[in-house]
This record gives sequence, C-alpha cells and structure tokens, in this order.
Amino acid sequence: MTPSHKSLADTTAEGIIKYIIDNKLKEGAQLPNETTLSSLMGVGRSTLREAIRALVSRNILTVQQGSGIYVCHNTGVADDPLGFTFIENKEKLVTDLLEFRMMIEPRVAAMAASKATPEQAEELLHLAERVAECYVLGKSHSEADAIFHAKIAEISGNVIVPQLEPLIMHAIDMLIDITHSELKEETIRTHMSIVNAIRKNDAIAAQDAMTLHLIYNRDRLRKAHEEKSSSNFNQ
Amino acid sequence: MTPSHKSLADTTAEGIIKYIIDNKLKEGAQLPNETTLSSLMGVGRSTLREAIRALVSRNILTVQQGSGIYVCHNTGVADDPLGFTFIENKEKLVTDLLEFRMMIEPRVAAMAASKATPEQAEELLHLAERVAECYVLGKSHSEADAIFHAKIAEISGNVIVPQLEPLIMHAIDMLIDITHSELKEETIRTHMSIVNAIRKNDAIAAQDAMTLHLIYNRDRLRKAHEEKSSSNFNQ
Repeated sequence: MTPSHKSLADTTAEGIIKYIIDNKLKEGAQLPNETTLSSLMGVGRSTLREAIRALVSRNILTVQQGSGIYVCHNTGVADDPLGFTFIENKEKLVTDLLEFRMMIEPRVAAMAASKATPEQAEELLHLAERVAECYVLGKSHSEADAIFHAKIAEISGNVIVPQLEPLIMHAIDMLIDITHSELKEETIRTHMSIVNAIRKNDAIAAQDAMTLHLIYNRDRLRKAHEEKSSSNFNQ
Repeated sequence: MTPSHKSLADTTAEGIIKYIIDNKLKEGAQLPNETTLSSLMGVGRSTLREAIRALVSRNILTVQQGSGIYVCHNTGVADDPLGFTFIENKEKLVTDLLEFRMMIEPRVAAMAASKATPEQAEELLHLAERVAECYVLGKSHSEADAIFHAKIAEISGNVIVPQLEPLIMHAIDMLIDITHSELKEETIRTHMSIVNAIRKNDAIAAQDAMTLHLIYNRDRLRKAHEEKSSSNFNQ
C-alpha cells in the first residue's frame, strides 16, 4: 500500500466530485463512461476504477452493470454517517437518538407548517396514510414512517435536516425493534395531528403535535426498557 | 469493475469492522499486521489492501507507514458525513447550520450543566481560555472553538451529539470565513457565561447562555449577508 498509489486514486475521486459539482449533476444524472472519464481525469483504467469504488462506498456514485455510472440519491450522505456501528451500548443509542429527535423535530415541524404549500400538505397526508396502511396490512411500516418524517424535514426548507434521513431511519428501526411495533394507534393518530397542523400552516400546533408524537415514543421505549430489566431480574 | 471483485473487498471490510467491534478495539488501538489480517479474513493481499483503503476513506482505520494499522479517532464518522460538499448554496448552508445548532446546542448545554463534574467544568474552563488566547495572539481560533463545543457535547452524556463534531467544525469555519472573525468580545464573554453556568450545574442558565451565544452569531451573520448584498447592489 504505497502512499502515492492511494493519493492518485484519492485525487481522481476529488476530480470526479469537482466534475459533478461544476456540471451541477443531480441525483440520477449519468456520468460519462469509463473511457471518457479516464481521459478527462488523465489516469489509467485501474486508478479510475479504484476512485469510482471509493465514491460508490461514500454514496456519491452508483454503478449499474451494462448501463453506466450515476449520481446517488442523497449524494454523499453515508449510510452510517455518524459511526453508530461503533457505539456498543445499543439501548443507550436508541434512547439518545430519540432525545436527539426531540431536540430537532418539533422545531422542524413548526418550520414546515410555516412554509408548506397546499400541494406539499397533500403529499404529506398521502405519506401519513401509507404508514397507516402498512399497519392495517400487517407490513413493516419503518420505511414509510421514515419517508413521512423526511418529507417534513424537506418542507422545512432547512438544507441540513433532510440530510439526517439515515439517522432518523436508524432511530425508527431500532425503536420498532425494541417496542415490537406496539405504537399503532398513537402513531397513526399523532401523525394525523402533525399533518393537520401543517395543512393549516399552524406552526405552534405542529410543534406541539410532533412533541407529543415523540413523547409517546419515549414513553413506550421507557416501558420496554423497564419490562426488559424486570424480566432479567426475574430470570 | 466486476461486481464479485467489489463484493469480496466489501465483505472483507465488513469482516474487519466485525473484528474491531468483537475485540472492542477503541480509538488508537493497533490491528494485526497485513499478513495476519489476510489469513484471518481468508483473502489475498490485494483484496485486503482494497478493503483497508475503503476503511481508511471511511475514517475507520488509519495506516502509518512502517508502523501499522490503527483504529481512527471518531471511528467511522465521515469527514463530510452529510454531504455538504454537494450543497451548492453556501450562504444558505451556513445560515441553516446555525439554525441547526440553535436546535440542539442550548439543550445540550443544559444537559451538560446537569451532569458536569468539577473536573469536567475545569477542563471546559481551560478550553474556553484557549479560544480567548487564540484571539489575543491573533491565531485562528476555529479549531479551539470547535473543541470547546465538542467538550460540552461530550459532557452532556448523549452519545449522538459528540458525533456531530465535524458538522459543528464546518459551521464554525464557514461562519468565521463570512464574518471575518469579528465576534471577538462576544465570543469570549458568552463562552465564559456558558462555562460559569456549567460549573454551577445551572441547566437553565447554561441553556440561556448558549442561546445568547448563538443569537450573537446569527445576528453577525445576518449583518454580513446584508453588507454583502448592499455592496453587490452598489457595484
């Protein structure tokens, strides 16, 4: 592993990032093929491939065999951006993730309520209904739930918060895992309260509804932890 | 770029991550050498090297030539975890980053005040003094400033918030860049108010002091944007 080799692939990766930015390529846009990229970057095929592999692992590019090289969804946001894999205490992780969501999501909901157009509010209603449908059909609602919360983040207009999508997804997955999805009624009802407040552009009501939604989640999580520690005690 | 090749290096990278977690290796711990890792993972040297390079670019490993392979500081937290590189409007990015900090940092300061030991409070005082020193000596204070805020995050006890260190660092850098570091007096004074509140374990005062600190920042940023747009107008 000579440093110069690493450095050339790194420089090439940076060159490709610059190319994406300069050409204002967005999610789903196709890049030139390998031959063209090789000559654009002035490197051989193997260095180019190494650079592309690094960009694939950083969620900047996606390679479709036989079709081409494309810019990723949520460009450059890592799957595990904050290294949760390396946080050992998963019980604390899920509690702290919820605490983190309580810091940001009520205010984000208020911002979304201030800015939502009627079209965005309808779209959000549709997404809340999809979460409810998953419950009714007995399907996992974790993805639909994350999409619902990500949409509120998008409507808020803040450019940072939607990038936290993988964190929220992670938080929802872990929560469902621990609480065994027992939040059915409360989730459907509080999601609807959030949607209704945003439809009315009522920022305070949206903030309250989101706070309530997360408090129900936290309460359920606390009970799950208590049940777990009392069953450990009884063993 | 055959998928099988990519997949083998990926599997090897996952194997190394599992090894780090199973053996509870922390920041700075040394991994076995290449020969031993190759046989542990059951792959050839070139696949192993590709896997290691991928882990280096994900800030999980660091390779010291002639010395060995080590676990990184802030293991697995990407340099640009949320893909800010790809957010085009930098003026909006800096404003939204400050808005994001206003959502989390006052509450984090309150949590830190509730939990801080006298030793932690002394350490924080020392870090605030280092920021002030940088100002006096005319040196860049961005790193010292980020370390001060990261320490408060650490004292809070929440495991997510300290992982946001690269975001806060990015926010501080961009802010200094735009406001030309004109926050001298206010930064030193409000940092000290935060430290004093945390030393007294006064959560409300810490929350207020952090809020005030960020409001000064936001006010200065607003003025910088206004000056910029009025100078554009006069050109």
